[in-house]
Amino acid sequence: MAYTGGGYQGWQRQAAGKTIQGELEKALFTILRQPITVHASGRTDAGVHALDQVVHFDPPSEIREINWTRALNSLLPPDICVTGYRAVSSEFHARKSAQSKEYSYRFWTEPEYVLPHRRPFVWDTGPLDTQAMSKACQELRGRHDFTSFMNTGTPVDSTVREVYRTELETGSGPEIIFFIRANGFLKQMVRNMAGLLFSVGKGQTAPEQIPELISRRDRKAAPQTAPARGLCLEKVFYPLGRT
Amino acid sequence: MAYTGGGYQGWQRQAAGKTIQGELEKALFTILRQPITVHASGRTDAGVHALDQVVHFDPPSEIREINWTRALNSLLPPDICVTGYRAVSSEFHARKSAQSKEYSYRFWTEPEYVLPHRRPFVWDTGPLDTQAMSKACQELRGRHDFTSFMNTGTPVDSTVREVYRTELETGSGPEIIFFIRANGFLKQMVRNMAGLLFSVGKGQTAPEQIPELISRRDRKAAPQTAPARGLCLEKVFYPLGRT
Repeated sequence: MAYTGGGYQGWQRQAAGKTIQGELEKALFTILRQPITVHASGRTDAGVHALDQVVHFDPPSEIREINWTRALNSLLPPDICVTGYRAVSSEFHARKSAQSKEYSYRFWTEPEYVLPHRRPFVWDTGPLDTQAMSKACQELRGRHDFTSFMNTGTPVDSTVREVYRTELETGSGPEIIFFIRANGFLKQMVRNMAGLLFSVGKGQTAPEQIPELISRRDRKAAPQTAPARGLCLEKVFYPLGRT
Repeated sequence: MAYTGGGYQGWQRQAAGKTIQGELEKALFTILRQPITVHASGRTDAGVHALDQVVHFDPPSEIREINWTRALNSLLPPDICVTGYRAVSSEFHARKSAQSKEYSYRFWTEPEYVLPHRRPFVWDTGPLDTQAMSKACQELRGRHDFTSFMNTGTPVDSTVREVYRTELETGSGPEIIFFIRANGFLKQMVRNMAGLLFSVGKGQTAPEQIPELISRRDRKAAPQTAPARGLCLEKVFYPLGRT
């Protein structure tokens, strides 16, 4: 699925407020006339976007020949869409089967304006030292306890995650993109890393401080959380494709 | 200036309804405390976007040291922005001094979904024959009487225009972009050409029919007008830059 998160309270269904899960389950109910629970590769926060979210659900066994893309898109609001579907084995689980996920975080560095076309998707930070940020990116790789980048809330078994890839993409324009791929993410981990990169880009934190900052395992040791609108779930990876 | 046109009745100030010109003049009035008329390189229709619209105005002579970008952007709504400014000679006129303008028109060819991120900027047409459309593009070049692509409304001195460049950009994704640069454009000329390209892309019009279609100088000879949201003013060209 793809969605722009600006109008939603995030992925997870809630008693009050529009959510992506809520809209999808509502559309499924319209089609199937029975309640269906859907499972995403991960919950995106309020305001966060997705280009390639993966979701699974168990349709009633008597239902077979539905073009789910067309059927759901005819019912979903314009800021949520299904981009494709396939049948999977009953062992497949959108979250549990995922090997890794990739997120992007977009910064807008032009201080005097934000292009209206890009405004919903960027954090307008003004000028940033991209060389220092690229260095900082490298320090975020590897297998670590990332407690310093975890906001409290949901309890987790382990705060250790492995970051496979980080990259800072700087084009010719004012938009720069931080990509990160990991085997999993703690609560607001990418936005907290983006907040750190901002701090590095503004010269408030040195890239060399990052290993120590990670080892302190203290959220208060790291800078502010970056706003949701810059964050996008780019891709979810599964062993052998998605089956 | 750049703007997304979805929320506006177009460039031109109107008695009722929000317009780009109206918003800009309102912001200028707040700064200058006197009415100012602004002049754009051309009027964009309701719903049409711009990435690089050029506008001029005559500030009162006693006003000199204003950062117009910052001052105006602090007052303009988030879907309109000033991207830069400079002082020009009194002979400069945003429309009359323009040598040529370039527009883009974006088609979305994936039949089963429209990416929410791109929805405000594309015409969702489903699959199109891009080879035929590329051929058609070439037939639109040159100096012609383009009456077949002009919607009636504003009277014009001449219906002859010279099209310097046309190109169809097809990437790897579902979005394909028609670029056109000309010394001027008749009312809804690009949208009427986009409507023709759609017809060609759907196999309803052959590229070979286009010279005859142009020579008939009859709007009814050409296909429908394409929707506004696919259209974007990309760039305005002036002799020796913009001075």
